[in-house]
Amino acid sequence: MRALFSPLLISATGLALAAAPADTPLRGFFPQSVQAERDLETRFKAMPDPTHMREVMRRLSARPHHVGSPYDKENAEWILEQFKSYGWDAHIENFDVLFPTPVERVVELVTPTTFKGKLQETALPADPTSNQQAEQLPSYNAYSVDGDVTAPLVFVNYGVPADYEELEQRGVSVKGAIVIAKYGGSWRGIKPKVAAEHGAVGCLIYSDPRDDGYAGGDVFPNGPMRPAQGVQRGSVADMPTYPGDPLTPGVGATKSAKRLAVSEAPTITKIPVLPISYGDAQPLLAALGGPIAPAAWRGGLPITYRLGAGPARVHLKVKSDWSLKTLYDVIARLPGTTEADQWVIRGNHHDAWVNGAQDPISGLVSELEEARALGALYKQGWRSKRTIIYAAWDGEEPGLLGSTEWVEAHADELRAHAVAYLNSDTNSRGYLGVEGSHSLEKFMNGVALDVEDPESGVSSWKRLQAARILNASPDARRDARDREDLRIGALGSGSDYSSFIDHLGVASLNLGYGGEDNGGIYHSIYDDFYWFMHFSDSSFVYGRALAQVSGIAVLRLANADLLPFAFTNLAETIQTYVKDLQSLRDRRAEQITERNREIEDGLFKFTSDPRDPITAPQRQQPAPQLNFAPLLNALDSLNHAASRYEKAYTRAVNEGRLANAKAVNERLVQAERALTSTEGLKNRPWYVHMLYAPGFYTGYGVKTIPGVREAIEQGQWQDADREIARAAAAVEREATLVSSLTSTLGGGS
Amino acid sequence: MRALFSPLLISATGLALAAAPADTPLRGFFPQSVQAERDLETRFKAMPDPTHMREVMRRLSARPHHVGSPYDKENAEWILEQFKSYGWDAHIENFDVLFPTPVERVVELVTPTTFKGKLQETALPADPTSNQQAEQLPSYNAYSVDGDVTAPLVFVNYGVPADYEELEQRGVSVKGAIVIAKYGGSWRGIKPKVAAEHGAVGCLIYSDPRDDGYAGGDVFPNGPMRPAQGVQRGSVADMPTYPGDPLTPGVGATKSAKRLAVSEAPTITKIPVLPISYGDAQPLLAALGGPIAPAAWRGGLPITYRLGAGPARVHLKVKSDWSLKTLYDVIARLPGTTEADQWVIRGNHHDAWVNGAQDPISGLVSELEEARALGALYKQGWRSKRTIIYAAWDGEEPGLLGSTEWVEAHADELRAHAVAYLNSDTNSRGYLGVEGSHSLEKFMNGVALDVEDPESGVSSWKRLQAARILNASPDARRDARDREDLRIGALGSGSDYSSFIDHLGVASLNLGYGGEDNGGIYHSIYDDFYWFMHFSDSSFVYGRALAQVSGIAVLRLANADLLPFAFTNLAETIQTYVKDLQSLRDRRAEQITERNREIEDGLFKFTSDPRDPITAPQRQQPAPQLNFAPLLNALDSLNHAASRYEKAYTRAVNEGRLANAKAVNERLVQAERALTSTEGLKNRPWYVHMLYAPGFYTGYGVKTIPGVREAIEQGQWQDADREIARAAAAVEREATLVSSLTSTLGGGS
Repeated sequence: MRALFSPLLISATGLALAAAPADTPLRGFFPQSVQAERDLETRFKAMPDPTHMREVMRRLSARPHHVGSPYDKENAEWILEQFKSYGWDAHIENFDVLFPTPVERVVELVTPTTFKGKLQETALPADPTSNQQAEQLPSYNAYSVDGDVTAPLVFVNYGVPADYEELEQRGVSVKGAIVIAKYGGSWRGIKPKVAAEHGAVGCLIYSDPRDDGYAGGDVFPNGPMRPAQGVQRGSVADMPTYPGDPLTPGVGATKSAKRLAVSEAPTITKIPVLPISYGDAQPLLAALGGPIAPAAWRGGLPITYRLGAGPARVHLKVKSDWSLKTLYDVIARLPGTTEADQWVIRGNHHDAWVNGAQDPISGLVSELEEARALGALYKQGWRSKRTIIYAAWDGEEPGLLGSTEWVEAHADELRAHAVAYLNSDTNSRGYLGVEGSHSLEKFMNGVALDVEDPESGVSSWKRLQAARILNASPDARRDARDREDLRIGALGSGSDYSSFIDHLGVASLNLGYGGEDNGGIYHSIYDDFYWFMHFSDSSFVYGRALAQVSGIAVLRLANADLLPFAFTNLAETIQTYVKDLQSLRDRRAEQITERNREIEDGLFKFTSDPRDPITAPQRQQPAPQLNFAPLLNALDSLNHAASRYEKAYTRAVNEGRLANAKAVNERLVQAERALTSTEGLKNRPWYVHMLYAPGFYTGYGVKTIPGVREAIEQGQWQDADREIARAAAAVEREATLVSSLTSTLGGGS
Repeated sequence: MRALFSPLLISATGLALAAAPADTPLRGFFPQSVQAERDLETRFKAMPDPTHMREVMRRLSARPHHVGSPYDKENAEWILEQFKSYGWDAHIENFDVLFPTPVERVVELVTPTTFKGKLQETALPADPTSNQQAEQLPSYNAYSVDGDVTAPLVFVNYGVPADYEELEQRGVSVKGAIVIAKYGGSWRGIKPKVAAEHGAVGCLIYSDPRDDGYAGGDVFPNGPMRPAQGVQRGSVADMPTYPGDPLTPGVGATKSAKRLAVSEAPTITKIPVLPISYGDAQPLLAALGGPIAPAAWRGGLPITYRLGAGPARVHLKVKSDWSLKTLYDVIARLPGTTEADQWVIRGNHHDAWVNGAQDPISGLVSELEEARALGALYKQGWRSKRTIIYAAWDGEEPGLLGSTEWVEAHADELRAHAVAYLNSDTNSRGYLGVEGSHSLEKFMNGVALDVEDPESGVSSWKRLQAARILNASPDARRDARDREDLRIGALGSGSDYSSFIDHLGVASLNLGYGGEDNGGIYHSIYDDFYWFMHFSDSSFVYGRALAQVSGIAVLRLANADLLPFAFTNLAETIQTYVKDLQSLRDRRAEQITERNREIEDGLFKFTSDPRDPITAPQRQQPAPQLNFAPLLNALDSLNHAASRYEKAYTRAVNEGRLANAKAVNERLVQAERALTSTEGLKNRPWYVHMLYAPGFYTGYGVKTIPGVREAIEQGQWQDADREIARAAAAVEREATLVSSLTSTLGGGS
């Protein structure tokens, strides 16, 4: 679902890729196991076939396949058959979820002139699937409340909280107005949420041509970018509160589940929302009066961007069919042997907003190719220590429905058995992106070193390091050159890993290549096979590379003698977060003091231009000092425990035997769980991880140590010390677990 | 001429404006002189009359009045009459200069489609002077060489050197091509100069709507911004080599002056150049192929900006009438008394590209209003110690012709007698902008404190400080709050101060309000009375404020007992420049080392996208360490001398008498001259000031300690130590002069 590419943050002195010699250590494997694992990986790496991936993409993206559509079900059944034919134990698991589909949509300018939005993407003769209008879901934002409003229009830039501060300074209120926001700058669901908090009665979201239209290249079908009538569909449910079915928070949406009434569902928007094309947006924006938009807000339309309110008045009507729809999650299993009750889980969604060749089929074809290869190995007699579960999720687009309901339905088992969850979604040419649990950072660096980048011939690791060095700030460049491991990003939200990591504390990874292909077909009817074959990884060599990266990661996790978690990287990463929080507090404190002084000194009054007046902002409560000591103490414990563990781990692996390996592995699986808190985050108890969460006001973007960070960002100073203590407790739990693991390993120094 | 507003850089704990009490010290005045000076200033400040300024603007901008036009001469004669009627001793001084005017202009797209540029601004019914086509100078760039070329087109962003590095990385060459550059990012004359250095055969310059068109507001006549057919005229002579008449470098262009042949004049462009509107540019840019322009290069047209070269081919033809034209400088004098051979000079140009209400009449009306007020005081019996000279320059637009030729013709007298030159040009609403000699920084802070800002009611100083605090970086904010004086900018080029400061070393100031009015009529037929009355300082209250600031500065300089130069600010400012140069060297050294390492490590190769390849840049010679010691030693001397002078000055003023005041003042006048070097800057000996010069590759933008700075920036390391020594020698000369002044004052501590 998430469109943005965020590349793996990584480092070290890299080597051009060559097959690693068999005696190179492999994290998690005893010396005597390395050769067999390397041989297996060599066999595995040769199996993914770009030609096959292309044909699978053609099949799966041949018709629109959103939740509830006939082809969504057909695809699920076809995927099921593939898994079975590959030798997997597979089934479909159903859930019944609230998924509104549009019945009536109106956007029209009523004053000072009239214009009726087309709200319809144009079929293009060059593009053979763009004319499947009968099956296409009209452009809309799922989980917009029904509504029918006519009100003055206000342009709010990206519609994030900072934009409203700017509007207020310019004396523009959105109270009683319909806002029009650009896509981008946050996850789309933030826009109506923040608009409603400020009193708006409706919300339009449009794709500005500067962001993914003609400014970035020729528009489809001549180029990859968004044409004038292209619209980005998407969910606007309040997923930072909880994802999944709005009616069944925290439990699987089975037939018998207890459901909220639609009117009670807290994640449905408070105001009606519709997405529109820039073709439809231009007449609306051009009709706005009021102050001229700040330079940074202006887009690529050949107009003067103004803020309003008015004289443009807009009529917005949204009405949906609110019936339940059935999800088809495809779940496939390769049973493990000696540690079969440890599960390595891999997933990618199969549903799309329309044809979805890029989103999600470009990732799914890699997953299915891995499954084919693993199945072939299985047929040849290979067995993994641990059980491997591959999932093709339904309903990701409307709100991570399929993965969330499955995770909620199987929560207890997963808490007990899940080793890790590996996700992918869209994939394209470029750089390996890795986000995830930092206890797996070292592990994924090892994998990235062993997979060749198809364009440069060096390892995916090496190419990424090169990009980091070339494009980073001096500090990040030093990091990329000198740190042993390239850094990986933390997980926010935007794809199916969310419930694993955020709700259960299962160590998770999100994997995908990207960064070279530009495009503007995201969530439109033009995200299809024709587009992908002309403007993205058309030779599927990055599809193969993703299958190699994910497949090798799965193989290593499933076969490891000792699970390859490393806590030194985790501890060091948390340390950077804490430093970050400390300087965030200091910066906020300085800003507030400075701003208050500026207000008291009358500077806003002195500089207000009578022809374009500025209102002084409100005085803010000065920021108190915070007590970071508990978190710093906990970090000391974790740092100490982690380096002791690393020594004990190295000794144990070098010895090549470990009597209690199974017990150690069972405890290792719980390490990520230790970072969760049963009461969850403030006002959103579904989110239990104390290190990572999507931001309440960013949506996709991660907030690390979210309780503390959001308290500081939102000026809720009274919460900050308590949140520090809660985060500290989680880090202490982790330190205790890691220490006890060291003891179990017979370590300590 | 210069369009950009660069506000006074200033600081301190300011007070809301009230008439300063008579016993507040006034820099340069003995205690017993303060009251009389304050009384005089109070009378003076009440005299400038907005209504009169408006009528003068209406008169002077009523018809086009470029060099050589009938109305240019009429205006000069009218201005002469005004001065005379105000009681001044005035005359017109003529020069005969090369000023090409267009005979033939063609811009047409010949491949892959055809389009012929209109090259004609549209008369607008609402705007009564826009239809004076018979008298309007067609849109062109003066001093473009004649030429007739047809070649592939390449888009070069702003056409500055860094843009060509970017093009090279993308494998785009301009050799044999016609470049199209956006206005902005440098002075326009840099664009054809750099293009020619890179092998281009022609140059188009257009006004992108993102920069001064619809992106910033409604277009004229509905708003202040540039309409689709609006064109920015302007000179492209190589003024960083020398300004003024291209045929008479270094000498006044009198009838009898020895002249270069046109073909020998080094400041005429090497390739033909024409400015075009965005209406004419759009079809050309839209026809470009090749790589997509970097995001920062893209403008506001609804197209994909591409680099070329080709497939667009363009035919460009420029042919001018190269005859000499006559300049009419109006020079007016109020004779001094006891120190009549010390001259305080004030100027503003009167010529325009077309009607020029904003540029230059908005500044000229203030100057003329000052002259009216000073004349009235003179008629009432007031006499200044020093001689006051007011000039209305002709020929500023084509290349600072009138001021440069006058300065060159009177160089010896001016070196002996000129106390300071005060310039203005365009004026609008907002903040007081001051640039100039830092020995006058403290003085101008005093003036700014005593003139009320018309919109806020606080002093111009206070309002500027408020803006600095609100908008500055933390360091600059601290500076604005805590430093006694707000900083003033250094002078680059772009108006008539250039020959005074750069060629003679006369302490100079450039003054004007701005920062609140946006506009896109610069150097077009729409810069006229109608535009000014709708979109700028239509009540002329900022015209009055500028008259008050400039007039008071003139009065204080002309009446001071001891000239108000202060060298502590100068020394401290030079210190910031030296620090700047040191970190510039270090930064360049680091960048070169880093870049060379990246090239050697193959990072460009690893990250090159085969569909959008990047070429690794060339290895560069590593930067040597430089010997800054001579400059640091000289600075120590100057710092010491300046603070001793300041004590001696304070003691002398407090004593209220000084036997040798006249002698001290005569020496003070030479202080700025001490900063010059007779051999001038490398490759441009016309520029003799060792602290300030317009950048060889920026044109307007100042380079401080230019010999050293440009050696570092351009990687001419072999020159850097010698340039440091030359700058050090100038600073030592200044220190010696200031020390000897202190002795003359009977000071020292």
